[in-house]
Amino acid sequence: MTFEFKLHHRDASTSARRGVFLTPHGDVQTPGFMPVGTQGTVKGVTIDQVAQTGAHMILGNTYHLALRPGAETVRRLGGLHAMTRWDGPILTDSGGFQVFSLKGINKISEEGVVFRSHIDGALIDLTPEHSVEIQEALGSDVAMVLDHVIALPALRSEVVEAMERSIRWAKRCQDAATRADQAQFAIVQGGLDEELRVQCASELAAMNFPGYAVGGLSVGEAPEEMYRITAATCPALPENKPRYLMGVGRPIDLIESVARGIDLFDCVMPTRNGRNGLAFTDTGHIKIRNAVHRYDTQPLEPDCPCPACRHSRGYLRHLFVAGEMLGPILLSIHNLTFYQRVMRETRAAIERDEFASFLLAKKKAWGFADSAG
Amino acid sequence: MTFEFKLHHRDASTSARRGVFLTPHGDVQTPGFMPVGTQGTVKGVTIDQVAQTGAHMILGNTYHLALRPGAETVRRLGGLHAMTRWDGPILTDSGGFQVFSLKGINKISEEGVVFRSHIDGALIDLTPEHSVEIQEALGSDVAMVLDHVIALPALRSEVVEAMERSIRWAKRCQDAATRADQAQFAIVQGGLDEELRVQCASELAAMNFPGYAVGGLSVGEAPEEMYRITAATCPALPENKPRYLMGVGRPIDLIESVARGIDLFDCVMPTRNGRNGLAFTDTGHIKIRNAVHRYDTQPLEPDCPCPACRHSRGYLRHLFVAGEMLGPILLSIHNLTFYQRVMRETRAAIERDEFASFLLAKKKAWGFADSAG
Repeated sequence: MTFEFKLHHRDASTSARRGVFLTPHGDVQTPGFMPVGTQGTVKGVTIDQVAQTGAHMILGNTYHLALRPGAETVRRLGGLHAMTRWDGPILTDSGGFQVFSLKGINKISEEGVVFRSHIDGALIDLTPEHSVEIQEALGSDVAMVLDHVIALPALRSEVVEAMERSIRWAKRCQDAATRADQAQFAIVQGGLDEELRVQCASELAAMNFPGYAVGGLSVGEAPEEMYRITAATCPALPENKPRYLMGVGRPIDLIESVARGIDLFDCVMPTRNGRNGLAFTDTGHIKIRNAVHRYDTQPLEPDCPCPACRHSRGYLRHLFVAGEMLGPILLSIHNLTFYQRVMRETRAAIERDEFASFLLAKKKAWGFADSAG
Repeated sequence: MTFEFKLHHRDASTSARRGVFLTPHGDVQTPGFMPVGTQGTVKGVTIDQVAQTGAHMILGNTYHLALRPGAETVRRLGGLHAMTRWDGPILTDSGGFQVFSLKGINKISEEGVVFRSHIDGALIDLTPEHSVEIQEALGSDVAMVLDHVIALPALRSEVVEAMERSIRWAKRCQDAATRADQAQFAIVQGGLDEELRVQCASELAAMNFPGYAVGGLSVGEAPEEMYRITAATCPALPENKPRYLMGVGRPIDLIESVARGIDLFDCVMPTRNGRNGLAFTDTGHIKIRNAVHRYDTQPLEPDCPCPACRHSRGYLRHLFVAGEMLGPILLSIHNLTFYQRVMRETRAAIERDEFASFLLAKKKAWGFADSAG
């Protein structure tokens, strides 16, 4: 079997799961976090450095890659794997989220979306079939179905309409797929309405996708709302398929969502925050530009094996103050390393049936004394 | 002996020399090229990646480091070696070249230079003694004396005045030095006048510095002028001391100058050109943004072991066109790797007494059919 999800263990006191997702390019240990390589590169980080952070799987953005360098160019360069030299699994999104969030929409219909390129203003069609075609040219291991994403809050009727359309589009994506070496994940929509989420999850579950995502969250709603919807949605998804919470999030969001049954995550936060001088650590975050770090000879974290932590905070601060590229590079690598360590510790805690106490300890260490869950 | 230059071999038919410069932080094989780490970082490249290019010694800029983060901050962070985690030899310039070239000069006298910081406009004194003090705080293995650099062309009287002042300042630097683990290199000035260069070299040679630099070149004069001055100067310098041609240059300039007796080089060209999308190769340079590379699956160079050459030219082009940091990072590493390979091949050619034919072959391969030398 080309794709398979093996559920090794369920945590004793939460909905956390410990599994492994088998793909043609290798195994993904879950819960797992995917670094985001929007334009075919995790920003500022070489592919060897990405691997050294401990990542198993990375993400590429169909919208960005379709505009530049273009799906045909990626195909002629051998696909995303050959281009990036990432030999592990790759997931591509469908382009839906960017089309809707970048607000370049010209027209939306049952057929698909017409949008303006943010690069050259050209009008581009994105239909479910076209999204599948592009993702097949990119050659990712996992393709996402095209969904209709709407801004929240929205009228219930709008949420229902977008959800129902997303289900119809998921079916069209399923029908359009031609590559046996690419798995399609469906995306559950339904806004902040638990009933709609469960309905959507159930309908998609009946279509037997090899994986399922919870979409349309982390778009500005309170974390508690996101946790509530995740908790309501997961039980409606098949047990034996991976569950991916799209675009999430802060370290606290990852472990809170693992507790509710999520297996996979992606987010630009470790790299974007790293570029902006914010480092995640096990005792909270560090704003490295702050003057307090000027003479600080300590590393960001004493036991971190990343290349940033070979240096002092004082040196890292200097790099940011002086506008040197190496500052963003090193903090991006550190944050990716931190995220992978949190996931590794998460997996170990689930295996020991200690995820509840692990979650509590992390929340305390990271400054979230009172749980939202 | 803390510092020593061992001359292993002289090329049979040119003035090229094969040697090794021993320092407290390790040996520098010569001829050798030092990557430039202006602000305490080779721009865009981690220190492990710098080492992987094959570099033995790197350079830091006293002017930039003195302004930011400041010599005292570097000292409190343990010096340049501890800060950068470069455990090989480091050379620092004196700040003179930047003070003169950045045109922030407020007043110049026999005592020293008063200049305005390009960062905050503050007035700063730079005397020979102060330059030594800063470089001792930085903790480099090799410190350069403060010299008086002038723009060319200039009146002979101005060239003479600056040269004579540079000699007096070299003496003051020598007298001011207190660290036994830091060697001072003197700098030969004298513009494009061979007679003045020889006079300056002879006077400095009599002061018995552990190394000598040829300064004030590569400032806009024709390459042939630089080669002529280098050829005239080297014979006036002690045989048993390393000779460093400051701020040079293109690959062709390196090997042409090796043929005239130079042992050490530094230049921002590999990293600056790399950031701008120009890659050096053994068959000439490549402008990676050019449309011709769009679908090109070849690497920059087939046998290059650098991380850029794991990728296709098409991918590298995409990174530059998309404005991704990884493009400048990878081309910087490639160019540094190329420079080090040229130096390695140079050393091997000298050892075989074949440097003349090596030089000829490289000039042909790089598109310099007719030699200026």
